[in-house]
Amino acid sequence: MTRDAVQRRPVTRVTGPSSESFEDAVAVERPLQLSVDGRALAVTLRTPGHDEDLVRGFLAAEGVVSRAADIAAIGVRESDCADEPDVAAIALADDVALDWERLERHFAATAACGLCGRAHLESLRAGLSRVPDSPPLARGALLELPQRLRERQAGFVATGGLHAAVWCDAALEPVVLREDVGRHNAVDKVCGALLAAGRRPAGPGVLWVSGRAGAELVLKAARAGMPALAAVGAPSTLAIELALAARMTLVGFLREGRMNVYAGAERIGA
Amino acid sequence: MTRDAVQRRPVTRVTGPSSESFEDAVAVERPLQLSVDGRALAVTLRTPGHDEDLVRGFLAAEGVVSRAADIAAIGVRESDCADEPDVAAIALADDVALDWERLERHFAATAACGLCGRAHLESLRAGLSRVPDSPPLARGALLELPQRLRERQAGFVATGGLHAAVWCDAALEPVVLREDVGRHNAVDKVCGALLAAGRRPAGPGVLWVSGRAGAELVLKAARAGMPALAAVGAPSTLAIELALAARMTLVGFLREGRMNVYAGAERIGA
Repeated sequence: MTRDAVQRRPVTRVTGPSSESFEDAVAVERPLQLSVDGRALAVTLRTPGHDEDLVRGFLAAEGVVSRAADIAAIGVRESDCADEPDVAAIALADDVALDWERLERHFAATAACGLCGRAHLESLRAGLSRVPDSPPLARGALLELPQRLRERQAGFVATGGLHAAVWCDAALEPVVLREDVGRHNAVDKVCGALLAAGRRPAGPGVLWVSGRAGAELVLKAARAGMPALAAVGAPSTLAIELALAARMTLVGFLREGRMNVYAGAERIGA
Repeated sequence: MTRDAVQRRPVTRVTGPSSESFEDAVAVERPLQLSVDGRALAVTLRTPGHDEDLVRGFLAAEGVVSRAADIAAIGVRESDCADEPDVAAIALADDVALDWERLERHFAATAACGLCGRAHLESLRAGLSRVPDSPPLARGALLELPQRLRERQAGFVATGGLHAAVWCDAALEPVVLREDVGRHNAVDKVCGALLAAGRRPAGPGVLWVSGRAGAELVLKAARAGMPALAAVGAPSTLAIELALAARMTLVGFLREGRMNVYAGAERIGA
């Protein structure tokens, strides 16, 4: 059994005084528990699909692994019960130590959750290193990117409810596209796929995201060694500050043939 | 000093082959550490403003408090240092016990973060009680809501980067509007303001949110005793399931004079 990313649900559409009932495509959201050596590490609500990439990207973002070989095996077991999570059973390589105490402290009082608005304070600026140098991105191709990517977002087109993240190479060709109800999950899936391909740091290119560019997305992209992040939506002040600190190019409002460059404009070419 | 919710930042706007530099309004995102009796409980990235409401709503959503009197005092101290979080120092009432061990377990391995995609598994369905009965919402007024609310979202209009949550009463009049870069923060701020006003459960009305309706938003609304949630964006499958379990009305794609009703259609009136 493989879970669907999109399912049909009954819905009543109301337009002014009239109503009609039909079945609508809805983005699936289901819990996935990450367990390392039989011990629960975290639970995330995600859209099923590319769960192994999600696990890899999550572990890399948390600093548990830094290359594909650090993970010996990932086995995803889907639960038959709606009230129980799916489980990703992770075996780390023998030479990779997981510091449970640090991670639990990290998730709990002082830092909590890297998937969302809870900050990894320690690493916000201090742990941030400069992204690798990379050649400029062709301006015209960057401006055309949203239109070219839209056709490929099957889940979004079906549901209007899935976020997408896409890693594009230096020629702005899409290399890895992942979708999820959670923006951060979509980015973790992309980073996990690159990790599996031996691409951490990612090399020249740009990470495109369908939503806004918050601080956590900049952190995830910087940790993955991505020199540029381009978002359809707005950045936050902290996202701009972190991009400046990492010397990363940060583009917002990339749509309709326009974009705003908030950091690293030197990486936008002619 | 009171922090701004919006600040200006330099930006280069690229339109086809031409570029211009100017200052753009950007949504502020800054860490806030919640400390109870001097001990750090959590850190959230939030947009400054209504921090006390955020604290109240967060504590209520986590089940730490259930009425305004459970919190003796909240003091927000803004940090002068960009690398340090602002701090909300919380004193609970004498008869309110905080079970640190439960909360840390909750935030860590099995449940993690209620602000985001990390699920509170235990409470996903099991802890969900039915929302109170309430009279139907006037269909015409509901369809007109987005337009009427848009004028009031000052931060979004300025930045394009702030989410809004609005509690509207049974006559669909907006009562509490809060903005934040984080969707869940905006909802926590609304729930916190209602808690402070002695309105938990919230009573008849509807919570309107500017983004999508994920499972966590349905949970927060249900815990606050809100009978209806209406979102501009799409719901997820789990959001629909939870709304059905709580007998909550769930509306998605509320825009341009239309809406999709995924649960509790009986609460949509003539």
